[in-house]
Amino acid sequence: MRVAILGVGLIGGSIGLAAHGRADAEVCGYDPDERVRAAALELGAIQREARDVESAVIDADVVFACAPVGALAQTVSKALAAAPARCVISDVGSTKRLLADASADERFIGGHPLAGAETAGVEHARADLFDGATWYLTPAQGNTAGVLYERLYRLLVAIGAQPTAIDADTHDRLMAGVSHLPHVLANLLVTHAATLLGGREESPSLPAVGPSFRDATRVAGANSTIWTDIYLANRDALIASIDQFAAGLAEVRGWLAAESAPAIAAWNEQARADRDALLGAGLAGGAVCELRISVPNRPGVIADIALALGRAGVNIVDMALSPSQDNRQGVVALWIRGEEHSQRAIELISALGFPVVQA
Amino acid sequence: MRVAILGVGLIGGSIGLAAHGRADAEVCGYDPDERVRAAALELGAIQREARDVESAVIDADVVFACAPVGALAQTVSKALAAAPARCVISDVGSTKRLLADASADERFIGGHPLAGAETAGVEHARADLFDGATWYLTPAQGNTAGVLYERLYRLLVAIGAQPTAIDADTHDRLMAGVSHLPHVLANLLVTHAATLLGGREESPSLPAVGPSFRDATRVAGANSTIWTDIYLANRDALIASIDQFAAGLAEVRGWLAAESAPAIAAWNEQARADRDALLGAGLAGGAVCELRISVPNRPGVIADIALALGRAGVNIVDMALSPSQDNRQGVVALWIRGEEHSQRAIELISALGFPVVQA
Repeated sequence: MRVAILGVGLIGGSIGLAAHGRADAEVCGYDPDERVRAAALELGAIQREARDVESAVIDADVVFACAPVGALAQTVSKALAAAPARCVISDVGSTKRLLADASADERFIGGHPLAGAETAGVEHARADLFDGATWYLTPAQGNTAGVLYERLYRLLVAIGAQPTAIDADTHDRLMAGVSHLPHVLANLLVTHAATLLGGREESPSLPAVGPSFRDATRVAGANSTIWTDIYLANRDALIASIDQFAAGLAEVRGWLAAESAPAIAAWNEQARADRDALLGAGLAGGAVCELRISVPNRPGVIADIALALGRAGVNIVDMALSPSQDNRQGVVALWIRGEEHSQRAIELISALGFPVVQA
Repeated sequence: MRVAILGVGLIGGSIGLAAHGRADAEVCGYDPDERVRAAALELGAIQREARDVESAVIDADVVFACAPVGALAQTVSKALAAAPARCVISDVGSTKRLLADASADERFIGGHPLAGAETAGVEHARADLFDGATWYLTPAQGNTAGVLYERLYRLLVAIGAQPTAIDADTHDRLMAGVSHLPHVLANLLVTHAATLLGGREESPSLPAVGPSFRDATRVAGANSTIWTDIYLANRDALIASIDQFAAGLAEVRGWLAAESAPAIAAWNEQARADRDALLGAGLAGGAVCELRISVPNRPGVIADIALALGRAGVNIVDMALSPSQDNRQGVVALWIRGEEHSQRAIELISALGFPVVQA
């Protein structure tokens, strides 16, 4: 199988490594930066380099357009023009609507792997980047060629991913609500706090606060180039999410102004139910329990806890550590799957002498 | 010294244990629930029990009102009426404005320890709950008696806390922005996602999403009784925060509608600068570096990393683990204080065979 990669960064390079190493593909790579092409060859992420999109795709069975979101539509368009009739063309962009035109071609299937956003550059590429990762595919209903969908699907499985079909509009609305909007809120929240603390001229120093602010602002100020493209590429869905969110905010403001305790309590209860349903149901293998542990914040404490749970075969699904201001103690939140494992975790952690409760 | 505790839950009980054990105080406790009083006596959190507020405070040197926010104003008012002339009365409520009336009495000093919100009940009380914790005090300018402030301050230091003076309005505006508003946003975000996913009747199942949604909704649906009281007690400051936040949201919406990439990029850069300034400056001892590590998600991995760092004396300030959907791999984010320790951490983690980058 011949695979063409258009844009050999972290994602493109990792696809190349995995396709060659696990699916025996010959990978041809194009990148506008010739130093990147040379590095990709050196790393074995590609076996051949191409100097333009057209020569990269000319004899390809599968094409992955891995250009930045801002250059993606043009790259896909060029690839469709030059690729063979029986070639499948996909991409890895985080929004799908801007490739709606391409979907008119039965050879195009939009894609979005949920992996790798943390780093960038072909030097971080790894064959196992997609192991177990959901890889959204957005075939066009009634149009996408079945044989091409099957070829792409099988290749993605071979490189370790879990392909999941979803229609493009649903994908974009979902990403707007659960990824793009949270990034917008995080940005607004840090800026609000900075303003509260007396303006930016005097270098605002955050006083001691609880862990909620840290959690809520973890993704604030993500890479501006990438995220400006993402926000704009998905602007319609994001605007719809913002409008719904703003309406909710106005509703809460109204309850506060009216001092309506019952409405606020009911709203909060609904949020708890929604959170339990979303985060419980969204993870395979049963509901996740949250434990809160008070610990002295010294090297080794996390290790002690993780080791004790590891020895007992209790896997930690998720974890967050909130230190106190002076770093002397803190609270560890652990998420454990299933009631049985959670109870076992409570026993083990209590035996280590740390106070623990189920949240 | 005689200390009176009005409301013997986690916070009141922990004050009692610490005041008796570390400051040699005799602690008298009142709680409306006589079983709670009995449990507190049994645990040694109090040495004497009182059947009403008046008899608890009648011979006290220091009074802590630890009632729920909704009952706090009345409890403080009763205590002020019955306490001796040279007694200092404080509280532990998370908003201070609703005790503004009490501040007219020179014996009252508002307080707010940043500790213990994770659990509840005297059975979880511990003498070390406040070790290293910031304890906000809101003396009334030009009114609070110096000798009483000093007595309270010294007692708090003796029980392990770091008393920090702040004026009540600033405290409430700060808490609105960095704690209460993030809770509101988390609630709205889970409800928005549940709505996106097709309404609640059909038990929404969250598809695979990135870690930002999990981080942003961690505090959604916190205890309704406690949080309804907190939201309402601080409603003026919270409404002001909501208004400023909503204005920011509208501004972002405008840039999206106008497809203004420069404005969005500049806003995102400002958020990054604000976040770095806030979270860097807010932690004593220099800026915090964020590392991102790709790991297989099996028991023991966190332990391996924590042990390697612990042996080298590198302390983990904060940590978050984002698993993949099938739980087979994930990304660990670690926050390490100082460039030198961060570089050491990168070396140690790389030596374990895990890809790591500085975010």
